Amino acid sequence: MPSINIGLIGYGGIGRVHAAAYRAIPFHYGLSADSIKVGGVATTRPETAVQAASEIGCEFYTTDYRDLLARDDIDAVDICTPNNSHYDIVLAAAAAGRHIYCEKPLAMNAGEAQAMAQAVDAAGVKGQLTFNFRFFPAIARARQLIADGFLGQVFSFRGRYHRSSYISRDKALSWRLQRELTGGGALFDLGSHILDLLYYLLGDFDSVYGTLDTLIKERPVAPGAAEMGQVDVDDIALLHARTRDGGLGTIEISRMGTGATNDVCVEIFGESGALRFDLAEPAWLYVYDARDAETPIGGQRGFRRIETAGRYDGQRAPDWTMSPDFMRVHAECQYQFIKSIWEDRTPSPSFADGLHVQKIMEAAERSAETERWVKLAEI
Amino acid sequence: MPSINIGLIGYGGIGRVHAAAYRAIPFHYGLSADSIKVGGVATTRPETAVQAASEIGCEFYTTDYRDLLARDDIDAVDICTPNNSHYDIVLAAAAAGRHIYCEKPLAMNAGEAQAMAQAVDAAGVKGQLTFNFRFFPAIARARQLIADGFLGQVFSFRGRYHRSSYISRDKALSWRLQRELTGGGALFDLGSHILDLLYYLLGDFDSVYGTLDTLIKERPVAPGAAEMGQVDVDDIALLHARTRDGGLGTIEISRMGTGATNDVCVEIFGESGALRFDLAEPAWLYVYDARDAETPIGGQRGFRRIETAGRYDGQRAPDWTMSPDFMRVHAECQYQFIKSIWEDRTPSPSFADGLHVQKIMEAAERSAETERWVKLAEI
Amino acid sequence: MPSINIGLIGYGGIGRVHAAAYRAIPFHYGLSADSIKVGGVATTRPETAVQAASEIGCEFYTTDYRDLLARDDIDAVDICTPNNSHYDIVLAAAAAGRHIYCEKPLAMNAGEAQAMAQAVDAAGVKGQLTFNFRFFPAIARARQLIADGFLGQVFSFRGRYHRSSYISRDKALSWRLQRELTGGGALFDLGSHILDLLYYLLGDFDSVYGTLDTLIKERPVAPGAAEMGQVDVDDIALLHARTRDGGLGTIEISRMGTGATNDVCVEIFGESGALRFDLAEPAWLYVYDARDAETPIGGQRGFRRIETAGRYDGQRAPDWTMSPDFMRVHAECQYQFIKSIWEDRTPSPSFADGLHVQKIMEAAERSAETERWVKLAEI
Amino acid sequence: MPSINIGLIGYGGIGRVHAAAYRAIPFHYGLSADSIKVGGVATTRPETAVQAASEIGCEFYTTDYRDLLARDDIDAVDICTPNNSHYDIVLAAAAAGRHIYCEKPLAMNAGEAQAMAQAVDAAGVKGQLTFNFRFFPAIARARQLIADGFLGQVFSFRGRYHRSSYISRDKALSWRLQRELTGGGALFDLGSHILDLLYYLLGDFDSVYGTLDTLIKERPVAPGAAEMGQVDVDDIALLHARTRDGGLGTIEISRMGTGATNDVCVEIFGESGALRFDLAEPAWLYVYDARDAETPIGGQRGFRRIETAGRYDGQRAPDWTMSPDFMRVHAECQYQFIKSIWEDRTPSPSFADGLHVQKIMEAAERSAETERWVKLAEI
Repeated sequence: MPSINIGLIGYGGIGRVHAAAYRAIPFHYGLSADSIKVGGVATTRPETAVQAASEIGCEFYTTDYRDLLARDDIDAVDICTPNNSHYDIVLAAAAAGRHIYCEKPLAMNAGEAQAMAQAVDAAGVKGQLTFNFRFFPAIARARQLIADGFLGQVFSFRGRYHRSSYISRDKALSWRLQRELTGGGALFDLGSHILDLLYYLLGDFDSVYGTLDTLIKERPVAPGAAEMGQVDVDDIALLHARTRDGGLGTIEISRMGTGATNDVCVEIFGESGALRFDLAEPAWLYVYDARDAETPIGGQRGFRRIETAGRYDGQRAPDWTMSPDFMRVHAECQYQFIKSIWEDRTPSPSFADGLHVQKIMEAAERSAETERWVKLAEI
Repeated sequence: MPSINIGLIGYGGIGRVHAAAYRAIPFHYGLSADSIKVGGVATTRPETAVQAASEIGCEFYTTDYRDLLARDDIDAVDICTPNNSHYDIVLAAAAAGRHIYCEKPLAMNAGEAQAMAQAVDAAGVKGQLTFNFRFFPAIARARQLIADGFLGQVFSFRGRYHRSSYISRDKALSWRLQRELTGGGALFDLGSHILDLLYYLLGDFDSVYGTLDTLIKERPVAPGAAEMGQVDVDDIALLHARTRDGGLGTIEISRMGTGATNDVCVEIFGESGALRFDLAEPAWLYVYDARDAETPIGGQRGFRRIETAGRYDGQRAPDWTMSPDFMRVHAECQYQFIKSIWEDRTPSPSFADGLHVQKIMEAAERSAETERWVKLAEI
Repeated sequence: MPSINIGLIGYGGIGRVHAAAYRAIPFHYGLSADSIKVGGVATTRPETAVQAASEIGCEFYTTDYRDLLARDDIDAVDICTPNNSHYDIVLAAAAAGRHIYCEKPLAMNAGEAQAMAQAVDAAGVKGQLTFNFRFFPAIARARQLIADGFLGQVFSFRGRYHRSSYISRDKALSWRLQRELTGGGALFDLGSHILDLLYYLLGDFDSVYGTLDTLIKERPVAPGAAEMGQVDVDDIALLHARTRDGGLGTIEISRMGTGATNDVCVEIFGESGALRFDLAEPAWLYVYDARDAETPIGGQRGFRRIETAGRYDGQRAPDWTMSPDFMRVHAECQYQFIKSIWEDRTPSPSFADGLHVQKIMEAAERSAETERWVKLAEI
Repeated sequence: MPSINIGLIGYGGIGRVHAAAYRAIPFHYGLSADSIKVGGVATTRPETAVQAASEIGCEFYTTDYRDLLARDDIDAVDICTPNNSHYDIVLAAAAAGRHIYCEKPLAMNAGEAQAMAQAVDAAGVKGQLTFNFRFFPAIARARQLIADGFLGQVFSFRGRYHRSSYISRDKALSWRLQRELTGGGALFDLGSHILDLLYYLLGDFDSVYGTLDTLIKERPVAPGAAEMGQVDVDDIALLHARTRDGGLGTIEISRMGTGATNDVCVEIFGESGALRFDLAEPAWLYVYDARDAETPIGGQRGFRRIETAGRYDGQRAPDWTMSPDFMRVHAECQYQFIKSIWEDRTPSPSFADGLHVQKIMEAAERSAETERWVKLAEI
C-alpha cells in the first residue's frame, strides 16, 4: 500500500487526539510506521503550529491551511477546526484533489453540507466524517445483530447524550454558545453524535419533532466579566423521531444534564429483541432476546451484557480485552478512512452520512420553530 | 382512634393486594388488629365474592357494590374495579357519605374526574387515589430534598414507565386494549403512575406535547382466535412537558418496551443537584450534589446511592432495611388514607391530584391529535 | 386442610414480621383467612405481650412460653427469641408434640443443634428454620438451574454478607456482642444466612478454614457509658471452604463492612456456566452460559439478568412482578412450614439443615483457633 | 530534557502495547516527538524482529537482547519477555548501566527479585515495574484520599482478579501453565496486579494465608493433542492477608472465573469511609463517607460514583473525559519511568515494590503448602 501523508488542520484538544491516533494504527494492525504519517500541520496561531509540529514530529507547519493544500506530498487533510470553517476548507481541499477527513458536525447547515458532499463526489476524493462513536465495538456488534435480523421489526428507540458542561450560570459565552461560529448548540455539538449512532443502527430518518430551549439565556461575555451576552443556541434539545422503517423514538440532548460527564445511551426495542448501549460501560452491549425460553417457574429471558472489547476486525491482538477508549475509537475511524483510500471504496461514515445527520438537525430546528413534525424530505 | 371498616369493591389481583395490605398496617405501626378491617367485599361474579370473603375473613359479600354502601357499618370503600366503573361508584359512595380510596387512573376522562373531585368535596368525605409509587421511601426522600431546595432551579427532567407486556402480536384484545373500558391505553395505565410521580416531585404541569401511537394495530379478539379486532388505544406515548416552574422534560410510556418488566425511572436535573430513581433498585435514591468539592486532580462530585429502605415516618421497626415491595407501598398509601380519616385532614394523593394527572393525560391525547402543545388550562 | 394455630414466642422486630407474614399467606395462595392463625403470643415482658396480642388480634398472651405449650389449641410454635433460649424452648415444644418454626441460627453450638434435631425427629413433629433468604425467587431459580445441570462441575464459589452496623466505636455492647447470649458474632448472626444459601445451592460442605477477628475489641457497656466492656465475639469472619463435590470457595462475613446495609451476594463459577445473586437487586438472577455461541467479531456470551420476581410456585397472582421484600420471603418460608404439616412431609429448611450450618460455623471457629482446615466430620 | 532512547526486548501483544504507548506520550504531555523514542528492538525470532522494527519505525533490530545493550545510543530497556528471562536480562542491563522498565511479575521467586532490586540499586540505574493498573486515575484518586486520611483506620479490604481464560478442559498447556517458564500460575500472572494495587493503597503486607488449587490438573500438551500433560501451577488462589497497619483482607485470584473477562475489583472498608474500584467502570471510583449527615427519615450517606477520567496530573487536555483504556495506563506508567530518569528520582512502582509483591506471592505459596499463616519477614 502507498504511504498516506496527512495534513492536519487545527490542533486543539481534538487535533492532538487525531494525531496520536494516526500514530497508534500501525501497532493495532501490523502496518509499517511510515504507512501513515502526519506530514504537516496548520493552525491559525503560529505558536500552536510550532508546538504541534514538535509533538507530531513533522517538519512542515503553517498558519494557513492553503499552504498544506499547495504541497504535493499531502494526500489527505484532516479538519479539526471550528464548524464555521469546514465549508471553505472542504471545498478548497476537494478542489485540490485531497481526500478529506472532517470533524463533526459536517457543516453549519444542510445547504452547506449538501454542497460539501457534492464537492467530494465531483472531485472524486474520499470524504469521511469523525463519527467516532460508531467505532466502539459494541456499536459495531449492535449493527451486525440488527443486520442479522436479531430485533425483528423495530418498535421504538431512545437515544441520549447528556453533558453537564454548562450548568453554571458563571460559565462565559464561548464559541460553542455562538451560532455564527457553530451553526447550532447542544443539538449540533452533542446531537450530531447520538443522531449518527441512531441513523447508523436504524437507517434513514423520516421525520422529527423538536423541542429546543435555552435554559440559561444570558452569560458573561468572558470569564468573570460583568457584561452579559445573549446565548443564541439551544442548550437542550428534545426530539421525537420516526425512521423510514416505521420505528418511533425519543432523543434527549442536553448540556444541562446535571451530574453527567459523557452520558451517551442508545436503546432499541424490537419485536424479537432489544439492545442497549451505555458509554459508561464502553466494552459491553446489552442484548435481550425475546426468543429465549420461558419456563413455568422462571424463564431465562433477560438482558445479557455481552463483552465486545478488543474485537476489531483484523486487529493483531484480538485479546486486548480491556475497554477501548476515546483514542482507540478515533484510531479506528481514521483507519477506516485510510482503508477507503487504499481500497478505493466509499468511506463510511461518509459525507452523505454527515449530510443526513445535518438534515435531521435542521428538521429538528425547523420543527421547534413551527411546532409541527418536519419531514427530512422537506430539508 | 375509631376502628375503620372498609368495603372492598373488586377483587382481582389488585384487590387482593389491597386486602393484604390493610392487614399488614397494624404490624408496621403498632395498631390493634381491629383498628382497620375489611368488613365486606363486592365483586361482579358470585364465586369470586365467596372466595374473597374467605381470604379476607369477612362475613359480608355481595355482587352489587350498592349493597355495601347500604350497610351502616362500612366507613369507607376501596375501589379496585376497571376504570369505566369508577365514576358511578365514586358518585354513589360520596352520596352515601362514605370515604373513598380509588385505584388509578381516577376516571375515563378529565370531565368525569372533575365531577368526582367535586363530589367528594361536596359530600365532605375523603377521596384518595392509589398512587402507590409515591410511597417508595426513595420518592419520599426525593420530595423532601426538593422541598429543602437541594436542586435549586429545576432545569429539566425525565420520566419513564416501560413494560413489555404487549410485544407479542398473538396477545389478544383484553379490556386494557379497549377504550370504552379503560379510557386510554399505555398513557392511562402506566402513564398515570409516572405522571403522578413527576407531578408529586415537580408540582403542577403547565403544558404538554404528545406523540401517541399504536404499534400493533390489530390483535386476535380472544386468545388463539383467528378473528382480529382493532386496538383503539395507544401502546406507546412519548411526551414533552413543561411544569409551571419552568422545567422542561421528556416522558416515555410504553407497553412495547421489549425486555422491560417494570421499568420505572425518574431523573431530575437542577441547578445545584440532580436526583434519579429506578424501580429496579427500589430502596435507593441516586443523588448528585453540584456543591460537592472539586479538586485539581479529581473531585468528589458524583451520584451517590443513598439508602432509603425502611424509613417510613413513625414505623415501629425503622431498622427493616430490606427493599420495600409492592405490598409495602400499597400498605403505606392505604395507611395515609386511614390517617386522613382519623386526623380529618386532606388526603394525599387526593382526587384533586388524580384530576391533575387526568388533565395531563387528556392534554397529551389532544396534543397528539392536533400536533401542537396543549396547556392544561385548556382542559 | 385443618386450620393451623400458631403460638408465637418472642415479639421483637422479627416476631412482628412473622406475625404479619402469616396473615399475608391466604392472599398469596387463595387460602381462607382462618386456615392459618396466630392464636397466642408469649413474650418475657408483660407490656410487650399485651401490645403483641393487640396487633395480632389474638386473645391469649403470656410471659411464659410454657403456657402456650400447655394450650391444646396450639398446633405449632414459632420461636423468635434470642439464640440462647432456642434449645430449651425447642426441647419443651417437641416434648409437648408441637411443630416448631425457629429463627436462625438454630442453636448456640453444634452439640445443642444435634440434640434439637434429634428431639423433633423423636417427637415426630416438624422442625423448620427461618432461612428465609432461600425464598427469594432468584435463589429458587438458581437451585433449579443447578439441579438441571446448568453449571456442570462447580469450580468455585463466593458468598458474602456485609453489614456496617458496628463500625462506630461508640456503639455499645448489645446482646449481639455477647457470646453467652448469642453463641457467636457476625459468623452466627450474618454467617448463618449466607452459609445456608451456599449449602442450599451447592450441597454439603466438607471442610473450612476460618480467619475470625474482633476489629473493635472494647465498647461502652451501655449507650453513652464511660465504662468499657470486652467484645467476646467476632465482628468479621473470612472463610475458605470446600464442598463435598469439590468446589472451592471464599466467604466474607462482616459487621464492619463500611457502607453496606444488607450486602448479600452469592457467585458460583462452573464448568459450563455461572450464577450471581445480589440482594440489592432481589428480583434478578445473573446467569452466564458458557455454551452460548461465540462468533469471530463478537459472541453472545455474557451475564444475563433474568427476572424472577413474583414467580412463586402456586401463587395466585404470578404477575406480581415487583421485587419481593423481606416480608414476602418470610411469608414463603412460613408457608412451606405450614405445607409440611398439611402434607406431612419433611420441612425444608429443616433442623437437619440448621445443624449442618451450625457445624460449618463451629468448624470455622475451631479452624480460627487452631489455624488449620477443619472437616465437618470432626464436629 | 535529553531525549530518551528505549530498547524494547520482546514484541508479543504486550510489547506492541508498550511501543504504541511510548509514541502517545508526547501528545498527552506536550513533549516533542523525539523526546522519547524506541530506537531498537530485540525478539527471539528474526521475522518478529523485522515486523517489530517496521511497526515501530526503528532501524535497529536483533534476535539477541545483548546487541541492544551493546549499543551506546540505548538509554533504557523495556522488558516484555516471559518471566523466566527477566532475571538474566535485568542483571545484564544493570551491568551495562541501562535504566530498566520490566513487565510484571518481576521474577520467578523472591530470591531472584531480591538480587534484581539490589542490582539496579548497585548500578545506580532506574528500575521500574509495569504495574500499569496503578495508573487508572481512579486508583490514583483512591491513594490520594487514603493519604488524606479519608478512611480513618482501615478495618478490612478485598481484592479480586478473575479471568475465565482457562475454564475449558480443551485448552492446551501453554507457557502460562508451566512453572519453569512462569514461576507460578494465576497467583503470579493475575495476582501480581491485584496484590500490587492493594499494596499500593494499603502499604506493606505483614502476613498471608493462602489456599491454592489447580482445578483442572491435566490438559492436552498442545491444541488438539490427545496426549495429556500435568499442570503444575495454580489456577485459583484464595488469600487472607494482614497489612502492617492491621487491616484484614481477602483476595480472590482465578483463571477459572467463569463469565469474567477482566474482573478486577478492590474494596476498602475503613472507620470513616469506604472505597471501591471496579475495572468494568475504569473511569469511576466509588466513595462512601461515613461522616455524611444522617437525618431522621433518611440520610445522605451512600456510595458516590466519582468521575476520575482524564485527570492525569499535568496532562495537556484534562478535559478528555472518556474512560482511559489499557493503552493509556501503560502510557502513564511508562511516562512516570521516563520522568524518573529525567528528574533523577526513585521510580514508582520500583523494583523494591516488585520485590514486596513477589514476597507476598511466595508467602502465599508457602502458606498453601504448610497450611499456616506466613509472615513476609520469613521470606
